[in-house]
Amino acid sequence: MNLKKIAGFAAAEEIQDGQIIGLGTGSTTHYFIEKVGMRMKEEEINVMGIPTSYQSFLLAKEWKIPVTTLEEHDVDIAVDGADEIDPNFNLIKGGGAAHTLEKIVDYSAEKLIIIADDSKIVNKLGKFPVPLEIISESRKPVFSALEDMGANPKIRMAQYKDGPVISDNGNFIVDADFREIDNPIQLEKDLNSIPGVVENGIFSQMVDQVILGTSDGVEVLK
Amino acid sequence: MNLKKIAGFAAAEEIQDGQIIGLGTGSTTHYFIEKVGMRMKEEEINVMGIPTSYQSFLLAKEWKIPVTTLEEHDVDIAVDGADEIDPNFNLIKGGGAAHTLEKIVDYSAEKLIIIADDSKIVNKLGKFPVPLEIISESRKPVFSALEDMGANPKIRMAQYKDGPVISDNGNFIVDADFREIDNPIQLEKDLNSIPGVVENGIFSQMVDQVILGTSDGVEVLK
Amino acid sequence: MNLKKIAGFAAAEEIQDGQIIGLGTGSTTHYFIEKVGMRMKEEEINVMGIPTSYQSFLLAKEWKIPVTTLEEHDVDIAVDGADEIDPNFNLIKGGGAAHTLEKIVDYSAEKLIIIADDSKIVNKLGKFPVPLEIISESRKPVFSALEDMGANPKIRMAQYKDGPVISDNGNFIVDADFREIDNPIQLEKDLNSIPGVVENGIFSQMVDQVILGTSDGVEVLK
Amino acid sequence: MNLKKIAGFAAAEEIQDGQIIGLGTGSTTHYFIEKVGMRMKEEEINVMGIPTSYQSFLLAKEWKIPVTTLEEHDVDIAVDGADEIDPNFNLIKGGGAAHTLEKIVDYSAEKLIIIADDSKIVNKLGKFPVPLEIISESRKPVFSALEDMGANPKIRMAQYKDGPVISDNGNFIVDADFREIDNPIQLEKDLNSIPGVVENGIFSQMVDQVILGTSDGVEVLK
Repeated sequence: MNLKKIAGFAAAEEIQDGQIIGLGTGSTTHYFIEKVGMRMKEEEINVMGIPTSYQSFLLAKEWKIPVTTLEEHDVDIAVDGADEIDPNFNLIKGGGAAHTLEKIVDYSAEKLIIIADDSKIVNKLGKFPVPLEIISESRKPVFSALEDMGANPKIRMAQYKDGPVISDNGNFIVDADFREIDNPIQLEKDLNSIPGVVENGIFSQMVDQVILGTSDGVEVLK
Repeated sequence: MNLKKIAGFAAAEEIQDGQIIGLGTGSTTHYFIEKVGMRMKEEEINVMGIPTSYQSFLLAKEWKIPVTTLEEHDVDIAVDGADEIDPNFNLIKGGGAAHTLEKIVDYSAEKLIIIADDSKIVNKLGKFPVPLEIISESRKPVFSALEDMGANPKIRMAQYKDGPVISDNGNFIVDADFREIDNPIQLEKDLNSIPGVVENGIFSQMVDQVILGTSDGVEVLK
Repeated sequence: MNLKKIAGFAAAEEIQDGQIIGLGTGSTTHYFIEKVGMRMKEEEINVMGIPTSYQSFLLAKEWKIPVTTLEEHDVDIAVDGADEIDPNFNLIKGGGAAHTLEKIVDYSAEKLIIIADDSKIVNKLGKFPVPLEIISESRKPVFSALEDMGANPKIRMAQYKDGPVISDNGNFIVDADFREIDNPIQLEKDLNSIPGVVENGIFSQMVDQVILGTSDGVEVLK
Repeated sequence: MNLKKIAGFAAAEEIQDGQIIGLGTGSTTHYFIEKVGMRMKEEEINVMGIPTSYQSFLLAKEWKIPVTTLEEHDVDIAVDGADEIDPNFNLIKGGGAAHTLEKIVDYSAEKLIIIADDSKIVNKLGKFPVPLEIISESRKPVFSALEDMGANPKIRMAQYKDGPVISDNGNFIVDADFREIDNPIQLEKDLNSIPGVVENGIFSQMVDQVILGTSDGVEVLK
């Protein structure tokens, strides 16, 4: 049983005719976008998507979901994945290096739904390293700042290209291992105050609903 | 009498043989870089520069100051300009659209000297709009957030190219007019917490020394 | 009498209901976009635009022209300006630093209409410098190559930002003064073969129609 | 026996005190950079490197090779790898997505040495797909143009980030499979004439020397 598919498909059922949808990035939102495309065809609903990455843009096109922009439309509902979800619905995101545009779109949405398989639920954030998108020139001072904050930072190296992963915005991705994060709300602010950090992968105080894929089916947390 | 030149030249006298220098951007640091180049030639001192923009890079080259990077060297001393300076040495910078890399370099410096003509001294920051470098897709939600904070934001339009000014990092510049800023330390953090803001032009709690050009000559504030 | 407006408005009359339009960049296409927006409102025609720059994107939004992408739709008709037009409809474009995306969109269009005031007609291209978008690191070897080809290159410096103009794609703009261009078709190819040149501002063998604004009204060249 | 190491180390022996070196990108040049660093330490030669990617920049730093720029210095000798080498020393490069800056640096070098294991020698180029760096908006028209030229193009997808590989310059990489390339010199020019193509991975008529690692040791081709 594909737990990601269960969550993604369930979220797609929440979408209503006429809505503007924030299209998250990753393997779980993949199923969400697919199912929205299927519903457009089968039920003849009309929606438009605002992608959070080249990946979700290309996927929207494949499923014939018309694409629009934050300039032209407000987001009614955004659906996105997560790498870790704590009991207060604080998240770590950015395994896919798309968290900057994800945060721009997700935070501007009237409603934000997070979809995941149930392995993503944790008591405390921090086992998954926090991704940061950084200006390349700041690599060294950013590492110093992160180490002062107790993290172990690594620059993310690419496959299929030599050297570091480059984000859709042309920047480096740093994975900062904090092991345990006591105060994600504060950490999200502190990380963005480091010069050179474009955006970090902690998403706090934003989520309206979590839809989990479990071996017993869909579970909805509010 | 050229007050910018007075300040720039005075700061260049602070530089010592062997130092790594953060090279600020703008019309005042222009004189600083020029004078460092002259001292290298005349006094045969050896220094290296870390530019904060394409402008200061090209200028360093013109004056034959060898250029290096934050990866290779720590900054002993950074010298940069400002658009406004308050009595606590908090600044507004970014009229030149280079504040992101300026902040990366300036904040990593062992010592930061600000140079300016004395018209830049203000009692309270905010008459000069705060520049923000932003990811282009975030334009609309960033404007909403700024308006909620009491600012009047404008996208900076270019000359010699159609449409918006693009920063050296490939991003938009927003000028946010706050009129009066009560708490620049807090505002610097708050602005960086808006999704899509790469970096803002408030520099607080960083400056070691201010060198002013006045009609009576050089004035040094510590 | 505003000759640019005459040309821009005339081109807008060519647009038909249901078309996908390439939206050029500049002061003349400004009028074209404006008039298309007016026709959408008054005549209730439906079209979609594919912008060639942030400028034309923001303008389309202002006039409520829905925006789409080359991924989603083919371009039925593109309307763009020019800095020089020769008798064979070869062009120099790029005064607005947008020629790379303009060329991508214009060349993919089923039909390309160029609009201009009649001062843009020349016997031979080359009085207007050819703009090149280049990777910043290639500045010096690109200048050498251009000088070997008989040109006088200058890096375009910005206003409202310190240092060089940065294009919407994050690159430098070089203006190469050739004075007289004997073979624009060959030159277009040769310039793109210089390592570091992203795209150059010669547009050859592409134009279907030229609509001129003259003091006697509209003149159409085919 | 590590054939890449044999070639890389042999090339490093060609380097002379005082030279400015173009530092290629990839697994073979990795050994070259390593050995240059060792020679600097052991033989106390002084050289400077001009990197062709973030990868070679970070590697140079690791081996304490001072880094400089094309603005400041001309390249005496560039050493780079290749994915295919034909009998006329035409190459396909770009498996590492760094071919744009490689071409800028390599073509500006007084002398260009290619290093490879001997499996890279082919009778005819084309079994390895030709990488192209492209402006993302041009994906679809570039694919059409490539298909018209007989190629089978694919967008290179990333690992460790969702969606496409992004180059150090912030662009997409397309791998165009031509199977057999009859005229690489012409194809290099033709590919760069497609609007949206920043640079392609065919390097023709540039190589001065090839150093191969073989099971019998070093083989030098001139």
